[in-house]
Amino acid sequence: MNDLYLRACRGQPVERTPLWLMRQAGRSLPEYRELRDRFGFGTLLRTPELAARVTLQPVDRLGVDAAILFCDILVPAEALGLRVEFQPGPVLDRALRTTADVESLRRRAPEEAVPYVFETIRLLRRELDGRVPLIGFAASPFTLAAYLIEGRGSKGFEAWRALVHGEPATAHRLLETLAALTADYLVAQVRAGAQAVQLFDTWAGLLDEAGYREFDLRYVRTIFERLAPERVPRVYFALDAAHVLEDLRDCGADVVGVDWRIGLGEAARRLGGGRVLQGNLDPAVLLAPPPVIERRAAEVLEQAAGLPGHVFNLGHGVLPDTPLEHLLALVEAVGRHSRRGRS
Amino acid sequence: MNDLYLRACRGQPVERTPLWLMRQAGRSLPEYRELRDRFGFGTLLRTPELAARVTLQPVDRLGVDAAILFCDILVPAEALGLRVEFQPGPVLDRALRTTADVESLRRRAPEEAVPYVFETIRLLRRELDGRVPLIGFAASPFTLAAYLIEGRGSKGFEAWRALVHGEPATAHRLLETLAALTADYLVAQVRAGAQAVQLFDTWAGLLDEAGYREFDLRYVRTIFERLAPERVPRVYFALDAAHVLEDLRDCGADVVGVDWRIGLGEAARRLGGGRVLQGNLDPAVLLAPPPVIERRAAEVLEQAAGLPGHVFNLGHGVLPDTPLEHLLALVEAVGRHSRRGRS
Repeated sequence: MNDLYLRACRGQPVERTPLWLMRQAGRSLPEYRELRDRFGFGTLLRTPELAARVTLQPVDRLGVDAAILFCDILVPAEALGLRVEFQPGPVLDRALRTTADVESLRRRAPEEAVPYVFETIRLLRRELDGRVPLIGFAASPFTLAAYLIEGRGSKGFEAWRALVHGEPATAHRLLETLAALTADYLVAQVRAGAQAVQLFDTWAGLLDEAGYREFDLRYVRTIFERLAPERVPRVYFALDAAHVLEDLRDCGADVVGVDWRIGLGEAARRLGGGRVLQGNLDPAVLLAPPPVIERRAAEVLEQAAGLPGHVFNLGHGVLPDTPLEHLLALVEAVGRHSRRGRS
Repeated sequence: MNDLYLRACRGQPVERTPLWLMRQAGRSLPEYRELRDRFGFGTLLRTPELAARVTLQPVDRLGVDAAILFCDILVPAEALGLRVEFQPGPVLDRALRTTADVESLRRRAPEEAVPYVFETIRLLRRELDGRVPLIGFAASPFTLAAYLIEGRGSKGFEAWRALVHGEPATAHRLLETLAALTADYLVAQVRAGAQAVQLFDTWAGLLDEAGYREFDLRYVRTIFERLAPERVPRVYFALDAAHVLEDLRDCGADVVGVDWRIGLGEAARRLGGGRVLQGNLDPAVLLAPPPVIERRAAEVLEQAAGLPGHVFNLGHGVLPDTPLEHLLALVEAVGRHSRRGRS
C-alpha cells in the first residue's frame, strides 16, 4: 500500500518523494509498443481491459508511485456528439467553426457517452488493489477548445485564437459548455474510483496574461470548485505559464505542476508559498546519460526542499525517444536522493 | 526620409511610434504569393533582384517604417559547407549529429559563401534611397544550432536538447563556431548597408533559466559585443522568454523585442527599465476584425507610454492567414493613436 503520492499532495509527511511521469505509459516501454502496434491507439484507450493494462505497465516496469488513466484529452468531446479518431494524433470528424456550431452542441452525461473511461477506472482500482493511487485527468476548457475549433492538433491554433480575439462571446459560450462537461467528467472519474485529478493546460502559453485570466483561469477555477466536495487532490498543470505564475495563486488547485523552464524555488515564491508543487525535470535531460539524469534529478529535489509537499515529475511528458534504462535510472535516483534528504 | 525606427531604437524623440512587422514580407501580400509561386522560396531569397523586390513589398503596400532583409535564418549555414533547401520549410543536406561532425566544420567568410545576401542589401539601400531604414538579421547561435543538429525544423528539437544535456562540450564547441560565424555575418551585413541588426532567438523557450544563461545568452552577448564598433542599433528578440526576462538585462542589445505574452510595462520592470522595447501585439489579434485590432493596438501603445523608446511590432511573426486589410488597419491605427498620444 503506497500512498506517498496522496500524502505529498496533501502536504503530509512522506518517507521519500513520490514520483510519476507525465506520459509514463508510452513508447519507451516495449510492452506498450507491442499493444499499440497490435490494436492501435484508439482501440487501446476504448477497451477497458487494454487501457487498464497500459495504465499498469509503468507501475510494473518502472515502479512509479502513481498510475494515471491511459486515455486522451479529446475523449470527452464524444459527449458533445463529436467523434474522435487517432491517426495517430487525435482528429475530430468535424471542427467547430461558427457560433451556430457552438450553440448546437448538446451535452450528454459522460457516463453514457464514454462509459469505457469509467469502466477502465473501476477495473484499475480492482487490479491495483491499493498498490499505488490512480490519477484521473482532463484538459482545461481552453486547451480542449483549441482542438475542437481546429478539429485536430495544430502548430499555432490560429482558428481558435481568431475566435477568442474576434468573437469572444462565442468563445466564452464554448468554454462554459466545456467547463460544465469537464467538471461532470472528472466528478464521474472520481466516483468511479480516481483518487486524484489533474487538469492539463497544454496551450495556456497561447494567451497573454489578461487573456489567460479571461479565457482560461476562470474556467479552471470553476472546475476545481465543482470538485471540492469530492475531497480528492486537485492538480493543475499549465505548460509554458511562466508569464502567469502569480495568477495561478487563484487557480483553486491543491497541487500546481510546473514546467521545466522555472526552478521550483522561484515558482514557489511567485505562487505565494504554501503550495504543494509537482515537477519539474526537463524531459530532454532523460535523453542524456544516467549520471547527468541523477545529478539533475538531485537538483530538482534540492530546489523542492522547502516546499510543504513535492511530487517529482517531469516538466512535460516523456519524450518519444527516451530510453527505458534512463527512466529506470531516474526512478532509482529520485528514490535514493529523496530518502537521503530526509535522513 | 523616414528615420523614425532608428531614432526610436536610440531612444531619441519621435513624432509617432514607428512600426514594422516580423514576417511583414509574406503570404498576406498577393504580390509576394505571385513571386513565390513563380520562382519558389529558395530562388527568391538567393536572387538579389527578387529578394530586394520582396523586401520592398511591405514598404510599398503597408507603409511600414522599416524594411527587413528577405532571407532565412538558415542561410549562414552555407558558410559552414552545409546546403539549405526549402521544401518549403528549410532542410539541410545533412544534420550534424556527432562531435566529429561539429569538429569538422570549416568556416568560410560569409561574403564568399553567400554573396547574394550582401548584394541584396547593397541593391536595397540604393532602391530605398533613404525612404526607410533597412534591418539585417540572423538567428541566435542556440536557435541556429537547433536546426543544424536536427537537419530541419522540429516540434521539440530532441536531438539538439539531448546534445545540450548529454554532451555539453560539443554543444559549446558548435555554439562558439556559430557565434563567430553570426558575428561575421552581421558585421558583413552592416558593412553592406544594413542600418540595424536583429537577432532572432525563436527557441530560447526550450531552455530553463540556468541553461539559457549557459547555452544561449552568453553567445548573444558575444555577438552584440562584436557589433558594438559598427554603431548600429542591435535588437534581440527571444520568443517564449518570460522565464528569463531578468537575465535579458545582460544581453547587450540596445532594443529588446518582447513576445505577446507579457505586457510591455511588466517587461520593462523586469528588464530593469531604461530599455527601448519592441513589440508586442499578439499576432492572432490580426485575425480579428479591425475595431478589435485598433483597440488592442492602442492598449500596446498605452503600455509603452513610459518607455525611453518603443518600436511597434507584433509579439511574433505575421500569421499565414492574416488578411491584408487587417495589416493595413493596424498600420493606420498605430499611426493615428501614437500621434494622438504625443499631442
